[in-house]
Amino acid sequence: MSTPMPTPERSPLDLPEGDPFGPHNLPYGVFSTADEPDRRRLGVRIGAYVLDAGAAAHALGSPYATLLDQPGLNPLLAAGRTAWRDVRRALTGWVTVPAHRPVVEPLLHPLDAVTLHLPYEVADYVDFYASEHHATNVGHIFRPDGDALTPNWKHLPIGYHGRAGTVVVSGTDVVRPAGQRKTPADPAPVFGPSVKLDIEAEVGFLVGTPSEMGRPVGLGDFREHVFGLTLLNDWSARDIQAWEYVPLGPFLGKSFQTSVSAWVTPLEALDAARVAPPARDFELQPYLDDSGEDELGGFDLRISVAINGEVVAEPPFSTMYWTAAQQLAHMTVNGASLRTGDLYGSGTVSGPEVGQRGSLLELTWNGRDPIDLEGGKRTFLEDGDEVTMTAWAPGPDGTRVALGEVTGRIAPNAG
Amino acid sequence: MSTPMPTPERSPLDLPEGDPFGPHNLPYGVFSTADEPDRRRLGVRIGAYVLDAGAAAHALGSPYATLLDQPGLNPLLAAGRTAWRDVRRALTGWVTVPAHRPVVEPLLHPLDAVTLHLPYEVADYVDFYASEHHATNVGHIFRPDGDALTPNWKHLPIGYHGRAGTVVVSGTDVVRPAGQRKTPADPAPVFGPSVKLDIEAEVGFLVGTPSEMGRPVGLGDFREHVFGLTLLNDWSARDIQAWEYVPLGPFLGKSFQTSVSAWVTPLEALDAARVAPPARDFELQPYLDDSGEDELGGFDLRISVAINGEVVAEPPFSTMYWTAAQQLAHMTVNGASLRTGDLYGSGTVSGPEVGQRGSLLELTWNGRDPIDLEGGKRTFLEDGDEVTMTAWAPGPDGTRVALGEVTGRIAPNAG
Repeated sequence: MSTPMPTPERSPLDLPEGDPFGPHNLPYGVFSTADEPDRRRLGVRIGAYVLDAGAAAHALGSPYATLLDQPGLNPLLAAGRTAWRDVRRALTGWVTVPAHRPVVEPLLHPLDAVTLHLPYEVADYVDFYASEHHATNVGHIFRPDGDALTPNWKHLPIGYHGRAGTVVVSGTDVVRPAGQRKTPADPAPVFGPSVKLDIEAEVGFLVGTPSEMGRPVGLGDFREHVFGLTLLNDWSARDIQAWEYVPLGPFLGKSFQTSVSAWVTPLEALDAARVAPPARDFELQPYLDDSGEDELGGFDLRISVAINGEVVAEPPFSTMYWTAAQQLAHMTVNGASLRTGDLYGSGTVSGPEVGQRGSLLELTWNGRDPIDLEGGKRTFLEDGDEVTMTAWAPGPDGTRVALGEVTGRIAPNAG
Repeated sequence: MSTPMPTPERSPLDLPEGDPFGPHNLPYGVFSTADEPDRRRLGVRIGAYVLDAGAAAHALGSPYATLLDQPGLNPLLAAGRTAWRDVRRALTGWVTVPAHRPVVEPLLHPLDAVTLHLPYEVADYVDFYASEHHATNVGHIFRPDGDALTPNWKHLPIGYHGRAGTVVVSGTDVVRPAGQRKTPADPAPVFGPSVKLDIEAEVGFLVGTPSEMGRPVGLGDFREHVFGLTLLNDWSARDIQAWEYVPLGPFLGKSFQTSVSAWVTPLEALDAARVAPPARDFELQPYLDDSGEDELGGFDLRISVAINGEVVAEPPFSTMYWTAAQQLAHMTVNGASLRTGDLYGSGTVSGPEVGQRGSLLELTWNGRDPIDLEGGKRTFLEDGDEVTMTAWAPGPDGTRVALGEVTGRIAPNAG
């Protein structure tokens, strides 16, 4: 009897052609395994696997072992742009050079066998309001008798601080928040679980390199400070927000939870996705005027929003009026400093078409026009609904770069 | 010849009668000394000295040595209310029991020989708007044709998130912020250093014990979570704020800097200062209704605000409409969690009298009525001005409890 030759097992590094999580992508995350649930490790996604980055760095004698053998991303964030570039170059080699395979392959964990965690400690969280289509829609809905855009809107990127302590990783349930609401028809405020629980499809930008108080960060220094980006769902209780937000802005209508992807995509992976922002309608103050910048300010990210698996919107990030570099310049022009781990959201991404709106507020026109899903009509979210955002962008040489998803399921308010 | 008997040196622990930093007070701070400038140590203020709390705990064999031998207050904050009480009791003994003097006295550092630091790491920073007199004044100034108070004002404590990363310790210069402003007379926004730089006299509340997401903190649990309080100056650029704040609230008009005292006064030191808040005009939602609470919600703190040494206002904290316990309950009623180091400001403290207004916006009615100082008239702050807030409250047995001052000097924008 002859033993048949074993079929050579396919390596996790032999990716399907066009895999959007190929070596041109390499987002960072933090994972733990079932046998060591309390040991968080920095990892890099490749295909459907996560590479234990610290273990690989040690095994390959990398000078970056100290930065990578960490329970979180903050040390690498703080290390600055040169380190970001060099580490990425090293990682690319580890997953592409055939000679490294015997070392690297045993350090790959299938994604479905690990737990993913929030990969960084959030310092300050800021949320912007940078889509003209979104702001116009919201203006028409909430202030039907006034101008859709406030007079300041095209002169500065409007933003506000949110709650850093309730930024959570994708997959965390969203407990329906309770709070006060009052419609014009109510004689007095009513208290109870929100009846207008909504999503906001956004992109978050993660700051690595800090800045000093009193020293504004100019448009051209965006890449010195921002490490990468991540999908972000700014869950919003529209009824709580509507009653509370005049005059000091959103508070409890937002602060219950903000979900971010478990993966941070380095800016370098998106070099092929840079596009010019829309034409500006007004001359901008010099600190915001990006007409002379070498680098295009926009990102051609195609976002998809699904409720219970059914796509309800495809917001195009390329249509955003204000860029992430402008937002960073604005945020610091008054002398406010940046810290490692600062996170800022783009604001809801909505395009000009109905099917490109990044919130149910807009998609259903504040509940007036329900949308039809297989599971029934929806105005706002119902308990048990699961919302998932994904996105991709053009990569080098015709490839696609996928962003890691952000998902969350609505849990009832136990009251 | 006979040598005269040496005069026994007076002990730093022999305080002048009525010293408001006596053993009934004992606020916490963090200091370093000239010979070890990089070694931050937790300290407790007694009179004009700071006790090296960790060194004292070790020398006296205290079980709290680990909590106190720290470079900051966060471990003690996280230890919870029982530890706070027990540590305070121990400290009181160390500075009052004569037998401890030989151990304790060498561990006292004169305040003028140490550097004080921000004593805690701020997690999230929230600012409220809880003085009816302040909100009414601001409403009259900014919305002269409308109702002074927005319809929600007496139904919920309005608040918003601020920038935690720019909370700094008393004594830090305030660089005049630059930004956009636009008065109705300006055809387009103007950029430059703020010409309406202002103060806001506030009291900050510091959270020790965290809470879980999805679990609101009730009114009765205030003392389980809040460790103590501190004076806070919420520096505000009124011109930047006026142009940016509709519709999402204050952002760059506030985020450049917030100054807090170097001292945190434990809640227990203020037991004799608790007072009832003003009568409420509307029935409150149950989560805010404090009419049945055992503990009085207000604090009888008498604040004093001086510019270049001249008192310009004496805002009475006892007049605040919303209490710190109500603010905490509101902040978490939507399920938002608390973290150790969360800091929330009361909002500007203004009383009913002109001389009790806690901002120059109100004191000068937005610049219309300059105030006379020895150094000249003021509408808003000029470069070089130094603003100092102090406060005291009734203590036990007719004593006074002083809060540590918060001070800051305006530095020019080098722009």
